[in-house]
Order: sequence, then structure tokens, then C-alpha cells
Amino acid sequence: MALVVRVGPAREVWWRDTLQDLLPDVECRLWGEAGDKDEVDYAVVWQPPIGELKTFRNLKCIVSMGAGVDHILLRDPDYPKHVPIIRTVGTDLRQRMREYVVLHVLRLHRRLPDIEAGQRRHDWDQIITPTAPDRRVGILGLGNMGADVAQALAGLGFSVLGWSRRPKEVAGVECHHGSAGLSDVLKQSEILVCLLPLTAETQGILNKDLFARMPKGANLINVGRGQHLVEEDLIPALDSGQLSRATLDVLCQEPPETDHPFWDHPGILLTPHVASLIDPAAGAKIIAGNLKRFIAGEPVPDMVDVAQGY
Amino acid sequence: MALVVRVGPAREVWWRDTLQDLLPDVECRLWGEAGDKDEVDYAVVWQPPIGELKTFRNLKCIVSMGAGVDHILLRDPDYPKHVPIIRTVGTDLRQRMREYVVLHVLRLHRRLPDIEAGQRRHDWDQIITPTAPDRRVGILGLGNMGADVAQALAGLGFSVLGWSRRPKEVAGVECHHGSAGLSDVLKQSEILVCLLPLTAETQGILNKDLFARMPKGANLINVGRGQHLVEEDLIPALDSGQLSRATLDVLCQEPPETDHPFWDHPGILLTPHVASLIDPAAGAKIIAGNLKRFIAGEPVPDMVDVAQGY
Ligand SMILES: NC(=O)c1ccc[n+]([C@@H]2O[C@H](COP(=O)([O-])OP(=O)(O)OC[C@H]3O[C@@H](n4cnc5c(N)ncnc54)[C@H](OP(=O)(O)O)[C@@H]3O)[C@@H](O)[C@H]2O)c1
Ligand SMILES: NC(=O)c1ccc[n+]([C@@H]2O[C@H](COP(=O)([O-])OP(=O)(O)OC[C@H]3O[C@@H](n4cnc5c(N)ncnc54)[C@H](OP(=O)(O)O)[C@@H]3O)[C@@H](O)[C@H]2O)c1
Repeated sequence: MALVVRVGPAREVWWRDTLQDLLPDVECRLWGEAGDKDEVDYAVVWQPPIGELKTFRNLKCIVSMGAGVDHILLRDPDYPKHVPIIRTVGTDLRQRMREYVVLHVLRLHRRLPDIEAGQRRHDWDQIITPTAPDRRVGILGLGNMGADVAQALAGLGFSVLGWSRRPKEVAGVECHHGSAGLSDVLKQSEILVCLLPLTAETQGILNKDLFARMPKGANLINVGRGQHLVEEDLIPALDSGQLSRATLDVLCQEPPETDHPFWDHPGILLTPHVASLIDPAAGAKIIAGNLKRFIAGEPVPDMVDVAQGY
Repeated sequence: MALVVRVGPAREVWWRDTLQDLLPDVECRLWGEAGDKDEVDYAVVWQPPIGELKTFRNLKCIVSMGAGVDHILLRDPDYPKHVPIIRTVGTDLRQRMREYVVLHVLRLHRRLPDIEAGQRRHDWDQIITPTAPDRRVGILGLGNMGADVAQALAGLGFSVLGWSRRPKEVAGVECHHGSAGLSDVLKQSEILVCLLPLTAETQGILNKDLFARMPKGANLINVGRGQHLVEEDLIPALDSGQLSRATLDVLCQEPPETDHPFWDHPGILLTPHVASLIDPAAGAKIIAGNLKRFIAGEPVPDMVDVAQGY
């Protein structure tokens, strides 16, 4: 049994060695030193080079080293569609995302950027905001991350609306679904958080039409994928006042060009895709555990529904 | 029955009129138009002019328009010590404080100032922090506000330590008390939040000796009172690296002089005493409700223990 690892040069050796320790019965190889590709049963990948997955002709399973699988399904039109995909999620990733979203919702809710501007002006200008029960926060995507984030915000007192593809119940959260449900969420959301997976349907969902359906002066937080946002629609929405602020953890190109207009726009906070990065040690254990279950023919909870795209 | 209101000029008339509506049986007067002071039974005050409370010789009760009573007990050595004091607390104040402290703990925990500095440099530098369960947060004061804040942080996943004068139990929080307990809290707290009342015992508690008992590079959040902090000890602690950052909502003098060194120090975030300001409409209802109970001889839960100083 053999496995190949592909993460990008910086950490690939660490991952190969760590997975080898955790999976002694599987021969773990680097992507670039795969040897006879027909011997390879498993591929553990992040952004695999386009067109290369299909050259491993006997793959039994692909593991995505993160919650999203768009880096395989959307990026690589030639990926082998019959091969099952396991994604990597877990407590650690949920915890990190919860911290990030709660921080940035509170930052916008309490108008911290305006308070910081007051300090820079030496101005003791008391800015009073409504309390969280009077603040409506919309969460697009009520999956592994979105449902947890929605409940954390509701637990702090916010009025939380959630949106998913299929009907869903999340305690303390007003849940909507489908395209009709989206309007109900948008028209109320003073702060909108995108925690959708990137699929053919969700690509470009954060665009000028969507902004126009939100209350004037609303705020946007994108922690899904850069391609959820139509980047050229953002600055006009901010400059017209339709949006007040945007907090973006993801961009179409990461890192962005050094002259990308988002870097210096006063209404945009850019964070370098740090909302919820996998902790390598914890992540390797989850991946090895899932692979062991797959090899033993046991059910794997983190199986991707390839047809649905996430 | 007569009552005087003292809040400072901007809102005094609003408060007088509002309390008059809520307490039709009590004649509500402005502090400066009190008439025959011997007729005054109740004083509703924020920072009453020093020495003046005692000139109302028949006061039956003083109401503090906020959670703290240091603006009476500590500021005015002549305040009439036999008169009971009611303080003003409630859901709204607790909610606001919870939002503020959770925001600022997360901001320091996730090193948001360093991430923002990266954006200013156009630098996509991924800063990875431990998760909340690996972050120890200490809360000084486990009262009305402190216990709520401690539980909110524990609910988000933080490891929370609390400190009070007397032994206390707060679900999910490691509770310590007294001077021995303080050491246990300090030596572990990577982020320390002061939510103590200002009393003779707690004045100046945030000083260089206390900082030295914390882990090197710890962070401080002061939402108690400015006088909890020995202001001249802060910048040396930051500059030596003993403390990493300080977030201060309160100062000895508010607003501070425009050349106060805290305005421009890169390690200090100043917020203009906005953590939990009383909402006038909600606050007036709470105050009127407490006074009605007092007048009817019913127990008032927000009675201050004057001997203990809070
Ligand atoms: N920035 C970061 O650091 C970071 C880290 C991790 C993940 N992420 C992003 O977060 C995404 C979500 O992760 P997750 O684990 O929570 O995903 P998940 O468990 O697969 O949940 C996805 C949610 O989105 C909903 N959804 C999908 N397509 C939809 C559509 N067309 N219309 C309406 N709702 C739709 C799903 O609805 P149903 O419930 O009806 O299926 C589900 O509630 C990932 O795909 C990734 O892009 C970002
Ligand atoms: N920045 C703002 O916007 C803002 C707004 C509201 C309030 N505040 C400040 O927050 C303070 C706390 O409010 P609160 O309503 O939570 O007060 P509280 O209910 O009276 O609670 C005070 C807590 O501090 C503890 N404590 C008092 N003296 C102590 C000492 N010498 N050693 C150890 N612990 C001591 C008490 O211990 P026990 O439990 O043993 O009594 C109690 O747990 C207020 O007094 C005010 O200064 C600030």
C-alpha cells in the first residue's frame, strides 16, 4: 500500500514523515518522488497540480488537507471523478473559526475601527452601539463551521440568522434555506458572514446585487473562499456607503499582488487566510484516523458528496 | 417626597423628566435647583460635587447611576455614611461588558494588532496562535460583571481563572480568592482582565509588582477604574516586554490630557470609557424600580455594602 503527499515544498517532508509514523502499514511518498504511480492507493493533498491527480490511475481515495475541496473539484477539471474524497475537519478547526468570526463580528458590532481612529486623533469620543440582541448577524452556510459559529454568536446574545441549501435546525438560530430563504437573511443582516463552501453555485455569490439586498451600511465578513466575492464589486459598494466595512480572510489570489487595491482601502481589513488553519500535528492525526477507517472499510464521517460539490 | 438628580449638565434635565414620569409620587428636582434641601429624601447621582451630599440632611437613600460607587465613597470623604446606597446594574450593562471583554480578549489572543500591521506593510504574514483552550485568561473580580464575562469566555473555549475576595464558584471557571489566590491567577494569566470595584484595597493593584508576577509578555485589559492602574508603571512594563499590550477603557483622568503618553504608545489601545455605559432609558427604569422598592420597604437586591466599599 502506498500514499503520496502534496502540500507545497515547505512542509511536505514533515507531513510525509508524520503520516508514515501514524500509518506504519502504508508506504508514504512525496508527490515529486512518487515512484511507480500505479502503486499509489491514497493521495493526501492541498492544491494538487492541475491534471496530475488523474495520472495516479489506481487511486482508491483522495484526502483534502482542509475543510474545503474546491482546490480539487473546482480547480482541476481532470480530477478522477470516481475516486472518493475525504475532507479534514475537527474540533481544532471549528474552535479557530469560532474565535475568528466572533472576534470580527464583535469588532464591527462595537465599531472598534472608529474608536481606534478616535485614539489616533486624541479624541475621547464615546461611541455607543446597540447591544447584541439588537444586532442581526447573518451566517451563509450552516455546516461544520457555520453552525458552530452561529451558536457561539447566539450564546453571546446576538440575533443570528442562518442560511443553508437544505432545511436545517440550529438551536437559538433563525434558519432559512434555498434562494427564497436567502432574501430573508440578507434583508435583515447588518453583519453578514460567508462560511459557504466554494462550488459552482456559490462562486461569485457576494456581488453587487447581493449587497443591494442588505440594509444600507451593512458589514461583510468573508471566511469562505476568495472566489465567493466578485472582487471588483466590493470597493464601489464600500465607497457608495452600501457597505460600511469588509473583513476578508480569503482572496482570489493569495497572497494578492502588492498593488492590490484591497491592501490600502480604509474600509477593508485583510487577514492572511488565518481564520482556521489546520494545526499540522492535530491535522495529521485526523487524516491518519480517517484513512485507517477507510482502509478497514469502516464508515468515514468526513466523506465529501462529490456530486453536490462539498 | 422629593428627589434630586445630578449627572452633569448635558443630560440632567432628561433624567429629571424621565424619573418624574416613572415616579409620579416623588417630586424630581435638578441638583442646582434643589430648593429646600431638607425636603430632599433621595439623591440619584453620578460624581456628585465633593462635600455637597452631606448638605442634604434628611437623605434616606442615595442611588449611584452606575455599577461602581467609588465616585461617592472614595471621592467624597464627607459623604453621609449612614445613608444607604443603591447601585445600578442589570442585563443591559452585563451584556455590554461581555461584548467588550470578549472582543478585546480575542483581539489580543489572535494578535489582531500584529495582523493589522502586516496589512499596512502589504505583508501576507500568517500569524498562527494557540487555540483558546491553550490560552489562560485571568479575571480579577467575579461579581455581577466579572462572573458573566468569565463564563462567556469559558463558553468560547478559553481556560479561565477568576479571583474574588471571598470564595466563589462559577461554572467552568477555576476560582481563586484572597491574596494567596491572587498569585495562582497571576502566574498563569496570559491575558488579565481587571473587573474589580475601586476600593481602598484595590486602588493601585495593577502595578509593576503585579506585572512581574505574570508570565513575560502577558496582556492587560482594564475595565474597572483608572485608579486600579498605577499609570506610571505601565509604559516601562510594556517597553521592557514584561507586558505585550494593554487595553484601557478607564483612566485616572477622563478624558486624559491631550499630551498623555498613553494616546500614542503602540502597545496601548485606549477606548473612551465605553465598555458598558448605562443606556439612559433602560437605566432610568431600573433606578425607578429600585427606588419604588426602597420606598415600599421591600428588599432591594442592588444595595451596596458600604462597610466593604462596593
Ligand atoms: N478561511 C479559513 O481559514 C477557512 C478554514 C476552513 C474552511 N473554510 C471555508 O469554509 C467552508 C465551509 O466549511 P464547512 O466545514 O462548514 O462546510 P460544510 O460542513 O460542508 O457546510 C457547508 C454549508 O454550506 C451550505 N451550502 C452549500 N452550498 C450551498 C448553496 N448552494 N446554497 C446554500 N447553502 C449552501 C451547506 O448547506 P447544507 O447544510 O444544506 O448542506 C452547509 O450548511 C469551506 O468549504 C472552506 O471554503 C475557510
Ligand atoms: N468600564 C466600564 O464601562 C464599567 C462599567 C461598569 C462597571 N465598571 C467597573 O466594574 C466594577 C465591577 O462591577 P460589578 O458590578 O461586577 O461589581 P460587583 O458585583 O460588586 O463585584 C465585585 C467583584 O470584585 C471582587 N472584589 C472586590 N474587592 C476585592 C478585593 N479586595 N480582592 C479581591 N476581590 C475583590 C468581589 O469579590 P466578592 O465576590 O468576594 O465580593 C466581586 O467578585 C465596577 O465597580 C466598576 O468600577 C466599569
